[in-house]
Amino acid sequence: MQLVSGKEVSNKVKDEIALEVQKLKNNGSKIPHLAAVIVGKDGASQTYVNAKVKACDRVGFNSTLVQLDEDITEELLLLEIEKLNSNIDIDGYIVQLPLPNHINEQKVTESVDPKKDVDGFHPVSLGKMLLHLPGFLPATPYGIIEMIKHYNIPTEGKHCVVLGRSHIVGSPMSVLMARKDYPGNCTVTLAHSRTQNLDQVAASADILIVAIGKPEFVTADMVKEGATVIDVGIHRIEDVSKKSGFRLVGDVKFDEVAPKCAFISPVPGGVGPMTIASLLKNTLLAVKGK
Amino acid sequence: MQLVSGKEVSNKVKDEIALEVQKLKNNGSKIPHLAAVIVGKDGASQTYVNAKVKACDRVGFNSTLVQLDEDITEELLLLEIEKLNSNIDIDGYIVQLPLPNHINEQKVTESVDPKKDVDGFHPVSLGKMLLHLPGFLPATPYGIIEMIKHYNIPTEGKHCVVLGRSHIVGSPMSVLMARKDYPGNCTVTLAHSRTQNLDQVAASADILIVAIGKPEFVTADMVKEGATVIDVGIHRIEDVSKKSGFRLVGDVKFDEVAPKCAFISPVPGGVGPMTIASLLKNTLLAVKGK
Repeated sequence: MQLVSGKEVSNKVKDEIALEVQKLKNNGSKIPHLAAVIVGKDGASQTYVNAKVKACDRVGFNSTLVQLDEDITEELLLLEIEKLNSNIDIDGYIVQLPLPNHINEQKVTESVDPKKDVDGFHPVSLGKMLLHLPGFLPATPYGIIEMIKHYNIPTEGKHCVVLGRSHIVGSPMSVLMARKDYPGNCTVTLAHSRTQNLDQVAASADILIVAIGKPEFVTADMVKEGATVIDVGIHRIEDVSKKSGFRLVGDVKFDEVAPKCAFISPVPGGVGPMTIASLLKNTLLAVKGK
Repeated sequence: MQLVSGKEVSNKVKDEIALEVQKLKNNGSKIPHLAAVIVGKDGASQTYVNAKVKACDRVGFNSTLVQLDEDITEELLLLEIEKLNSNIDIDGYIVQLPLPNHINEQKVTESVDPKKDVDGFHPVSLGKMLLHLPGFLPATPYGIIEMIKHYNIPTEGKHCVVLGRSHIVGSPMSVLMARKDYPGNCTVTLAHSRTQNLDQVAASADILIVAIGKPEFVTADMVKEGATVIDVGIHRIEDVSKKSGFRLVGDVKFDEVAPKCAFISPVPGGVGPMTIASLLKNTLLAVKGK
């Protein structure tokens, strides 16, 4: 069993980006600049955004944090976005989700200039992905693709089952794994809450990508011997044996599934760290696209 | 076995549209106006475009045919498109594909104003489809969705296998059948030329959508008893017993497959007529979206 370490791959990706930034600096070129918009003081969102800013520092990007009030109107938020769209120093930016209920998330996402859409959530980015055109891939699927590449996991002609059809992970992942490319060229099955015999469907997978949002949902009987398992879930579950009182688990029951796998990504240290690395890669792409 | 007659459904759709146009006329509202751009004199393309113009007449739309020379430059073609984008009387338009080799088809497709993209080929349209947002669906998949609806074919929890991953049929169809909707909520497998054991994959389908582009490719052994089969292919094959010297067949060997099916679409008279009906529906949507 080979561990698919997102920690390791993301460090490699960040090192490569840092090197490219160094070259840009040496040439006197513009330094990539990523901005992040955060509305309100939600703890998890703050943690994610801080990690993104920290990653920018690590690779030498400039970063800007736009902290907005919980009760900002949609109109004013859209004005802030307009400013980021027209600010030529900002190469790309993200709007940290979720947004407060009084704001239409989709409207905000669509108001991001597609040229700066480094989260890859704009319809233009997703449409280009479907058409296999160059563009920004959504960060988490992009990270999974990079991990598969790094470990040379064979994909052509394999049966890939994606569990979960979310707009930001499952659905795009199913599209990417079917494209005429490497990674890709899989026969792809997209399964979800309405799927019948989900256990059997999962067990038919050569490559199982789990983004179903349920702690330790995938058990050993749902995995084929020799399969590759990529676990996108991350959950805090209570654990009195830990000092913190909790531990992190994924959508896969790692201990019992791992022995059956050719490749498996752990939680934490699997897909998680790749998402930020992909965001940085997209930002570099935004600079180059200019 | 119930025949899924695109001829019948498309006539119903056209009647409904004609009624709506009549209402618009009675109210003194603007009459929907579809334009079609055709470059060169390719026989098949001329036939398709003429059928589209004729369909406009039938439902009471205004139509404009923009016939351009085979050797028009890309630059001049893009100027023509710019004119259509800014012409406020034109609600939607299509650029008939394929275009001559010296023109970049993708560039042309992306230059169509997404608000007038009634073919549903623009990245914005496809991205909205993936995000389950209102927008223009690509005409052929849209037509298939309408047929499934018309015949109340159950889809929730069913296993839908799509054969073929083209950008305009197979890939979007796989996305649509997995969405949280009716038709939709299927477990969807997208299979293609690199799929292993394609026969078995096809035979596991409750709903089999065939867009693989090979005459009579799907045989009886590849279809489950009681399945629904939708045939997107259309091919002319030589037949000396016909006055014309040829007959039309689909991607499915109809005679041997039909007896096993709960529902099956024939060729001709199946998916084909639905494509134009969907184009008209999209044009009406473009008017309403204003």
